[in-house]
Amino acid sequence: MRWKPYDIPSSDNVVDFVQGLHTVCGAGDPKARNGIAIHVYLCNTSMVNLCFYNSDGNFLFVPQQGRLKITTEFGKLTVDPNEICVIQQGIRFSIEVEGPTRGYILEVFDAHFQLPYLGPIGANGLANPRDFLTPVAWFEDRDVPEGFRVVTKFQGKLFEAKQLHSPFDVVAWHGNYAPYKYNLEYFMVINATQFDHADPSIFTVLTCPSNKPGVAIADFVIFPPRWAVQDHTFRPPYYHRNCMSEFMGLIKGNYEAKEDGFAPGGASLHSIMTPHGPDYKCFEGASNGELKPVRVADGTQVIF
Amino acid sequence: MRWKPYDIPSSDNVVDFVQGLHTVCGAGDPKARNGIAIHVYLCNTSMVNLCFYNSDGNFLFVPQQGRLKITTEFGKLTVDPNEICVIQQGIRFSIEVEGPTRGYILEVFDAHFQLPYLGPIGANGLANPRDFLTPVAWFEDRDVPEGFRVVTKFQGKLFEAKQLHSPFDVVAWHGNYAPYKYNLEYFMVINATQFDHADPSIFTVLTCPSNKPGVAIADFVIFPPRWAVQDHTFRPPYYHRNCMSEFMGLIKGNYEAKEDGFAPGGASLHSIMTPHGPDYKCFEGASNGELKPVRVADGTQVIF
Amino acid sequence: MRWKPYDIPSSDNVVDFVQGLHTVCGAGDPKARNGIAIHVYLCNTSMVNLCFYNSDGNFLFVPQQGRLKITTEFGKLTVDPNEICVIQQGIRFSIEVEGPTRGYILEVFDAHFQLPYLGPIGANGLANPRDFLTPVAWFEDRDVPEGFRVVTKFQGKLFEAKQLHSPFDVVAWHGNYAPYKYNLEYFMVINATQFDHADPSIFTVLTCPSNKPGVAIADFVIFPPRWAVQDHTFRPPYYHRNCMSEFMGLIKGNYEAKEDGFAPGGASLHSIMTPHGPDYKCFEGASNGELKPVRVADGTQVIF
Amino acid sequence: MRWKPYDIPSSDNVVDFVQGLHTVCGAGDPKARNGIAIHVYLCNTSMVNLCFYNSDGNFLFVPQQGRLKITTEFGKLTVDPNEICVIQQGIRFSIEVEGPTRGYILEVFDAHFQLPYLGPIGANGLANPRDFLTPVAWFEDRDVPEGFRVVTKFQGKLFEAKQLHSPFDVVAWHGNYAPYKYNLEYFMVINATQFDHADPSIFTVLTCPSNKPGVAIADFVIFPPRWAVQDHTFRPPYYHRNCMSEFMGLIKGNYEAKEDGFAPGGASLHSIMTPHGPDYKCFEGASNGELKPVRVADGTQVIF
Amino acid sequence: MRWKPYDIPSSDNVVDFVQGLHTVCGAGDPKARNGIAIHVYLCNTSMVNLCFYNSDGNFLFVPQQGRLKITTEFGKLTVDPNEICVIQQGIRFSIEVEGPTRGYILEVFDAHFQLPYLGPIGANGLANPRDFLTPVAWFEDRDVPEGFRVVTKFQGKLFEAKQLHSPFDVVAWHGNYAPYKYNLEYFMVINATQFDHADPSIFTVLTCPSNKPGVAIADFVIFPPRWAVQDHTFRPPYYHRNCMSEFMGLIKGNYEAKEDGFAPGGASLHSIMTPHGPDYKCFEGASNGELKPVRVADGTQVIF
Amino acid sequence: MRWKPYDIPSSDNVVDFVQGLHTVCGAGDPKARNGIAIHVYLCNTSMVNLCFYNSDGNFLFVPQQGRLKITTEFGKLTVDPNEICVIQQGIRFSIEVEGPTRGYILEVFDAHFQLPYLGPIGANGLANPRDFLTPVAWFEDRDVPEGFRVVTKFQGKLFEAKQLHSPFDVVAWHGNYAPYKYNLEYFMVINATQFDHADPSIFTVLTCPSNKPGVAIADFVIFPPRWAVQDHTFRPPYYHRNCMSEFMGLIKGNYEAKEDGFAPGGASLHSIMTPHGPDYKCFEGASNGELKPVRVADGTQVIF
Repeated sequence: MRWKPYDIPSSDNVVDFVQGLHTVCGAGDPKARNGIAIHVYLCNTSMVNLCFYNSDGNFLFVPQQGRLKITTEFGKLTVDPNEICVIQQGIRFSIEVEGPTRGYILEVFDAHFQLPYLGPIGANGLANPRDFLTPVAWFEDRDVPEGFRVVTKFQGKLFEAKQLHSPFDVVAWHGNYAPYKYNLEYFMVINATQFDHADPSIFTVLTCPSNKPGVAIADFVIFPPRWAVQDHTFRPPYYHRNCMSEFMGLIKGNYEAKEDGFAPGGASLHSIMTPHGPDYKCFEGASNGELKPVRVADGTQVIF
Repeated sequence: MRWKPYDIPSSDNVVDFVQGLHTVCGAGDPKARNGIAIHVYLCNTSMVNLCFYNSDGNFLFVPQQGRLKITTEFGKLTVDPNEICVIQQGIRFSIEVEGPTRGYILEVFDAHFQLPYLGPIGANGLANPRDFLTPVAWFEDRDVPEGFRVVTKFQGKLFEAKQLHSPFDVVAWHGNYAPYKYNLEYFMVINATQFDHADPSIFTVLTCPSNKPGVAIADFVIFPPRWAVQDHTFRPPYYHRNCMSEFMGLIKGNYEAKEDGFAPGGASLHSIMTPHGPDYKCFEGASNGELKPVRVADGTQVIF
Repeated sequence: MRWKPYDIPSSDNVVDFVQGLHTVCGAGDPKARNGIAIHVYLCNTSMVNLCFYNSDGNFLFVPQQGRLKITTEFGKLTVDPNEICVIQQGIRFSIEVEGPTRGYILEVFDAHFQLPYLGPIGANGLANPRDFLTPVAWFEDRDVPEGFRVVTKFQGKLFEAKQLHSPFDVVAWHGNYAPYKYNLEYFMVINATQFDHADPSIFTVLTCPSNKPGVAIADFVIFPPRWAVQDHTFRPPYYHRNCMSEFMGLIKGNYEAKEDGFAPGGASLHSIMTPHGPDYKCFEGASNGELKPVRVADGTQVIF
Repeated sequence: MRWKPYDIPSSDNVVDFVQGLHTVCGAGDPKARNGIAIHVYLCNTSMVNLCFYNSDGNFLFVPQQGRLKITTEFGKLTVDPNEICVIQQGIRFSIEVEGPTRGYILEVFDAHFQLPYLGPIGANGLANPRDFLTPVAWFEDRDVPEGFRVVTKFQGKLFEAKQLHSPFDVVAWHGNYAPYKYNLEYFMVINATQFDHADPSIFTVLTCPSNKPGVAIADFVIFPPRWAVQDHTFRPPYYHRNCMSEFMGLIKGNYEAKEDGFAPGGASLHSIMTPHGPDYKCFEGASNGELKPVRVADGTQVIF
Repeated sequence: MRWKPYDIPSSDNVVDFVQGLHTVCGAGDPKARNGIAIHVYLCNTSMVNLCFYNSDGNFLFVPQQGRLKITTEFGKLTVDPNEICVIQQGIRFSIEVEGPTRGYILEVFDAHFQLPYLGPIGANGLANPRDFLTPVAWFEDRDVPEGFRVVTKFQGKLFEAKQLHSPFDVVAWHGNYAPYKYNLEYFMVINATQFDHADPSIFTVLTCPSNKPGVAIADFVIFPPRWAVQDHTFRPPYYHRNCMSEFMGLIKGNYEAKEDGFAPGGASLHSIMTPHGPDYKCFEGASNGELKPVRVADGTQVIF
Repeated sequence: MRWKPYDIPSSDNVVDFVQGLHTVCGAGDPKARNGIAIHVYLCNTSMVNLCFYNSDGNFLFVPQQGRLKITTEFGKLTVDPNEICVIQQGIRFSIEVEGPTRGYILEVFDAHFQLPYLGPIGANGLANPRDFLTPVAWFEDRDVPEGFRVVTKFQGKLFEAKQLHSPFDVVAWHGNYAPYKYNLEYFMVINATQFDHADPSIFTVLTCPSNKPGVAIADFVIFPPRWAVQDHTFRPPYYHRNCMSEFMGLIKGNYEAKEDGFAPGGASLHSIMTPHGPDYKCFEGASNGELKPVRVADGTQVIF
C-alpha cells in the first residue's frame, strides 16, 4: 500500500462526507497530541468504495440534518439528528446518506471522551452508560478490482492509499475501543429545583479530560428539554465570561437566550474571557415574568 | 492541671449538655482514629463554669428542639433547629439553653467534614461556602475561684480537670480551624428535572472522606423542601439495599416515605445491606398519582 | 420481615452449604470494613427454600470437588472445579449440589476484587476481561407458604428472616455489580523465558487493593500449567519470607515444591515473615536436573 | 565565557561525534519541554579538546557499531554495541572512538528515563536496577591554552564557548543525577509461557513517562534472545495499528518478522495508526510451522 | 460591543501603563495555555477612561519604582515597591500613577499562582495566607459619553472595544477569584541555621504549578533580609546550572553575589543549563571572611 | 523448625536486649498492620547464640547510653548514642553491648520510614540521603550444636525456634530492603532566620506516612544544636495542643523548655489534644531576654 496526498475531487452538486468536511475553528496541534478542532460537514451523496480514518484524534459527530448510515470496521451505526456518535482515532468508516445532510464534529487530539465523574449526583444521572450503543460485528468479503480508497487525516492533512478489497472484513471483535452512539433524548436532566441558576456544566454529556484535574480539553454540553421551577431566580443564562472558549450550535428548535436569529445548523463562538449573555428581549422577559413551573427548551442546543 | 475521670453528676430534672449526651450507635474506634459515633443530647439547663472538648473527633450538631447558645474559644454561636454546627476536635465549648433542648450529633474520628466535590454541578450549588458562618472572637477575663471544670471525651470516656479562670480568654484568632454553623434553608437543591429518581447523594450537605476515593466515613444528607417535577417516575425513595448503614432523624414535618409513625426527634437505623423502602400507603400513592409539579417536603429529614 | 439469629440446623450426614461453611483463618474485622477471612465449605445437599447473603464482604469461591449450581438474584451460575466465582456483598444466592462437594472461599471486607494493573504486560495477558462470565437474568414468581428463609452473615454472625415468596424474582438488571465466574484454564500465563525465577505475583488472577498503592488486602494467585524454560535458574519456588501471610490450597494434581503430602483439598498457612521453601527432594532435583523446556504443573494450586 | 553559534567544521573523511550527529525524526518542541527527537550518529575520530552537552533533554545512546569511550563530568563510561547509555540534560561529555562508529540516539525533552512500573511482574524482572552502572569519579587538572570548546544543543541549535582548561575537573560527586550504562544481555525476559502473543510492551527496558498515567513520551523496547514456547499461537508480531509511532532499528542479527532487507544500522518508521505487520514469508512460516519450544532472536532489535 | 485591534497611541513623554508595557522574554504559547511571559512596564501617566484585561493568563506585578493605584472590578488596590500584586485572567483594571513608575510583570498562561506546599515547614512560614489582602468592593455608576475603552491582550495581541459607561460598576462580590496584594516584608524567612547552603527554593513566595508533581511553570522567589549564621559554609549562591531558566530583577539595595553592576530596575537572564555564579570579589570575600552571624540583604531581589 | 512461645529467662543482674525490652506506650494493632508501639530497652550483656526479628513492623533504635554492636543478616552496624538505626520487619539481628546500655525504640506497623518530602526546602536539607549508612555484607559459617535460638515478636508476643547453625550466613545481598544507621550530627538544620517560631515539623528526621496525605503514622523529630536568631519572637516552644500524641525522650544535655527535671533517658507523653508548654522559668526568660543570635540546644531531644 502506497500513501500519497489525497486530491479531493471537485464537484458541483454532488458532495460526499470527505469532500464536505470543513474545519471552522480549533486550538492546539495534532502533532503535539494536544488540543481540539471543530468541523462542520455538508454532503448529499454516499461514500462509495471509499473509507476514512482519523490519525489525529477522535471524532464526535452531532448530526443536525439527515441520517448518517455509518459502516465501520466494528459494524454499522445509524445516527439520526438528536443522536450523537463517536468514532475513535484510527477506525475506518464509510458514510452513506439519504439526501441533504449536515452536522457538527468535535475532534479531540489528547484523549478519549468519557462520562463526567458525577460527584454527589451518584451512580445514575446525566448520560447513563447503559444508553450508549456499540455496533454488532458486520463484515463483507468483497473484492474491489477498481480499488477501494482509504483516506486518512494525518497531522491535519488528507492522504490516500488504494487496496483491492473492502476493509470492512472484520468478522468479530472484542474489547472496548469501539465506536458508539447515544440518543440525546435519554439524557437524564439534573438542575436546580428550589432556587438559583445552576452552572451549565450540569448539562455535560461527555468530556475529554486534560491532565489537570478539573480542567477539560473539551466538554460536550446540551441544553435539553426540561422543567424549570426555580423561585426567586433569573432563569436564562446570565452575562458571563468563560475560562473556556464556547462554541454553540443548534440541532432543532430555538435557543432560549436568543430566540431570533440563531437558526438550526448555525453556530456562534465566544472566545475565552469575552463577556456575553442573553439579548434584551430575553432579559426583560425573564426579569419580569411569573416564575411558575414551565417546560423549557423544546429544541436542543449543543456547546463544545 | 490534674486530670481524673469525670464523675457525671446525677440529677433528677435538671440536666446539662454533658449529662444529657448519649451515644446511640457507631462503628470503628477513636483509638484507631477510624469510624463514627452517633449521639443524641437532651438537656434543659446551661453549663456553668463548665466546658467540654472532644479529644476523639469532630462533632456535627443537628438541633431538633431548642436554641443552642454555644461559647467557644473562638467566640459565640447561636444555633437554632434547622441549622447545624460543627465543633472540631480539641475546641473547648460551653452550651447555654433556654428550656427543653434536644438534637442529634454525628461524630467522626478520621478527618474533617468538608463540602462534597461537586463534579458537573460546577462551582455553585448544594451547600455554598459563603453560607457557612464562623464566630467573631469573643473573650472574658474572668477568675473562677471555685474552679472552672474542663471535661473532655478521650477514647470514648470522660475526664475532667479544674482551673481557676475561664478558658474563654482568647482575644483574637486567625486560621481556618474554627467552628462554624450553617442554615439548612440555604441549601441550593439540585434534582432530576425531566425524569428518573436521582440518588440521594444529591442532597449531601457535608461529607467526611475516607482514604478510599468515592467512599465516605460519613455523609450528612438532608431531604429539603423542593419542587418535584419528574415525569414517568416513581418519585419517593424506592426499595434499596445500601453499602453504607443509614441513620435517619427528623427535624420537623413529615417524612414522605413514612408519613405516619416517624416523629421529629425520632430516629431509624438501616444496617448495611438490609433492604428497606417506602410503606404501602406511600407506594400506592406515588404509583397512581398524577405527576404534575408539586412542592415536597415541608419538613426536613437528616441522614448520616 | 423480622430478623433473628440463625440457629444452624444440626445434621448427621446431610449438610447444605450454610451448614458446611467453616472459617479457618483471617485478619481484620468486618465492622471496620478492613481485612479478610478464609473459609472452607463441605456439603452434600442443596439449599431448599433457603438463600444466603453476605453483609460483610465479597466471597470468592474456589471449588475443589463437586459442581456448584448457584442461583442468584441476577441469574444462574454453574461453577465446576478449576473455575472460580465471585458473589459480592449483599447479593442473595442459593446453592444446589450433586453430591460430595467442597472448596475454599476467600472473603474480603474492604473492597471489590479486580484485575491487577498489568503494567508492561500491556492490554492483554493473565486473566483477560473477556473470559469472565456474568449470568443472564433468570427469575421465578413462586409463592412459598411455608416460608423462604433468608440468611445473612452480618459482622461474622448468621441471622435469618422469613418471607412468603422466592427472592429470585428479579426479571431484568443492568449495571456492573453482578456475580461472575472465570475458568482458570483461560489464564494466559506470563513467566521468565530466558533466565531467573519470576516473582509469584506474576500469577495473580484477581486482587483486592488496599488504599496503599502496591499493597493488596488479598491477592488470588494460581500456579497454572505452563512451559518452564529458564536457563541457569533454580526453577521451583525458593526459600523466602513474605510480607503477606500465605494461604495455599490445591485443586488438583501435585504441588511442584512439595510433591508428597499436600493433597487436593488440603491447605497450608505461612504467617507473615515466617521463612519457608521447597522440601529436600525438590531442592536436590531442581539443583541437579537438566534445564530443558518442560511442561510443569499439571495440577493447579491456589494462593491467597 | 562568550557563547556564539557553533560553525560545524566541514570535513571529508574525518568526522567526530558532533559532526556526525544527524536528526532523523521527532515530535514536539524542546522550547515547550515536550516531545522527542531521534538521531543517528556516524563518526570515526575522537573529540579533542571539545565537549558537548544537551540543553534540551536527555540522550539515550544505542551503539550499533564501534565502542564509545565517553568522558563525562562524573567519570568515564565504555559503551559497546548491545549496551546502551543515558547522558542527561546539561552534563558535559566527550566521545573517543576507535574506528568506524555508528548508532541511534533517542532524545526526550519532557522528563527522565525510568524503569517501568512492573505491576504483577513484582520486584524483579525486565531490566533490574542492579545492572545499571554509573561511572566512578575521574578528573583531570589540565590547562588548554589553545582553548577547550564547549558545544551545546540549545533549542535544537548548536552553540559554542571556549575556556582555557578541561571541564572534566570534578574530583568527586554524590547524588543520583548521573549518566549510566546498561548491558542489554542482562535483560530478564518475561513472555507468554502457555499460549497467546504478549504485547510488545513486555520488552520495555526504559520509559519516559508523560503526565498522563499509562501514556509514555517514549518507550525504549528491545526484542531480546529468548525461548518461544506458546502453543496454539501465531508467534511473530501480527498486523497492527499503533497509538504511538514506532521507530525500529537493528543492532545485530535478523528481525524475525522481516528476515530479509532489514540490516543492522537500518531503521524503519511506522507512523501513528498506520497498519503494518510481518512479510508474507514470515506469515506463512509461522502459520504452518510446528510450535515446539525454540530459541528466537539471536539478534537484537530496538524500538522507540 | 465591537472589537478591533488596539492601535497603541504614540507619545513622546507621556506614557500610560498600556503604552509602557513591554515583553522581554518568555516561553510557550498562550494559545496552548502553556508557558510564561515576562514583561516590564514604564509609565508616568494614569489610564483615563481606559481599562485593560488579560485574556491570556495571570499577571503578577512587582513594582520597582512608583506607587500603583489600581482600580479593578473588585475594588481598589494600592501597591508600593516591595509589595506585589496579582490580577487574574479576565479581570478588568485601570492603573493610576503619581510620577515615573516602573516594575516587572510575570505572566503565566497555565494556572493560578498559589502558595507552595510547605512540607516539613508545617502550617506556618514563608508567605503566610493571612498577609494577602483582597480589595473591598468599590464601584462607580458613571456614564462616559465619549466612550470608555476596554483593551485586552488576547493571544499576545491587543484589541479594544468601546462602551458608554465605566466598567467598574460591580457593587458587591463573593468568591475567591479576586486580585490580591502582598507585602514582601511579611515573608517569614526560613534558612539553614547550622551549616550548609539551602536551595533557593526555600525563598519561594508564590508558585504556578505544572501538571508534573515537583515541576513549576514559574516560581516567584525573593532574596529577603535575614540573618546568616551557617558555620563551615560558603554562604552566597555558588556556581550552578539550573533545570529552569532564571530571570532576576532587583527592587532595591544590592545583590550579594554581584555587588556592582546590578542596579535596581535591571534584569538578568540565565537560560536553562547555562552555568553561572558569583563574581570573583564575592567568591574571595565569602571564602575567607569570618562566619559570624550577620544580617544580609538590606535590599530585595526577585527571581522568576 | 518448630515454633513455641518464648519463655524469657529471668535473671537478676544480667540482662540481654530481648530480656530488657519493655513496651511503654502505643496505639493501633499489629494484626491490622496499623499503628505504633514505643519501647525502651535496658541491657548489660550481649545476645549469645540468640537472634531476634520483628514480625510486626519496623524498629527505629535511639540509643541513649552505650554502644550497640548489631549483627544482621546484611552485615554489622555499630550504633552509638546520638546515632539512630532502623531494622525492618523480618530481619534477624543480634546485639552485643559493652556495659550498661539503654535507649528508645519506635516501632511502626504500617509502612517503612522515609525521608519527608522537602517541599520548598528543595533537594538538600534536613537529613540528607547520603548520610545514611547500610552495612557491608558479613557472614559466618558456624555450626551451633547446642542450638541457635531465633526469637520473633509476632502479634505482640514472643516465639522461639532453634536451629543448629548461625543464621548470619548470608554471603552477599543487593536491593534496598536493608537496615541502616544515621548520625544525628549530620542533620542539616533549617529554621526561621528573621522572625517567628517555626513549626517543630521542621526538625523531622524520618516519617512513616499513613495513607492520608499530610498525616503520618509517626514522625521522628529532634531538637538539634543550632543558631537561634529570630527577632520579635518567643523562641522556645509555646503552649499548644497537638493533633498527634507526643512522646519525648532526651539523649543528652537539657531540654530548653524544661531545664530541670527532664533527665537523659527519661520520657514524657502528651496525649492528643492535651495542652502543654514551657515551664514558668523558661517563659519568663524567653519573654524578657535580649534576642541576639545564640547557639541553643547543646543536647538532643527526640520526639515521636
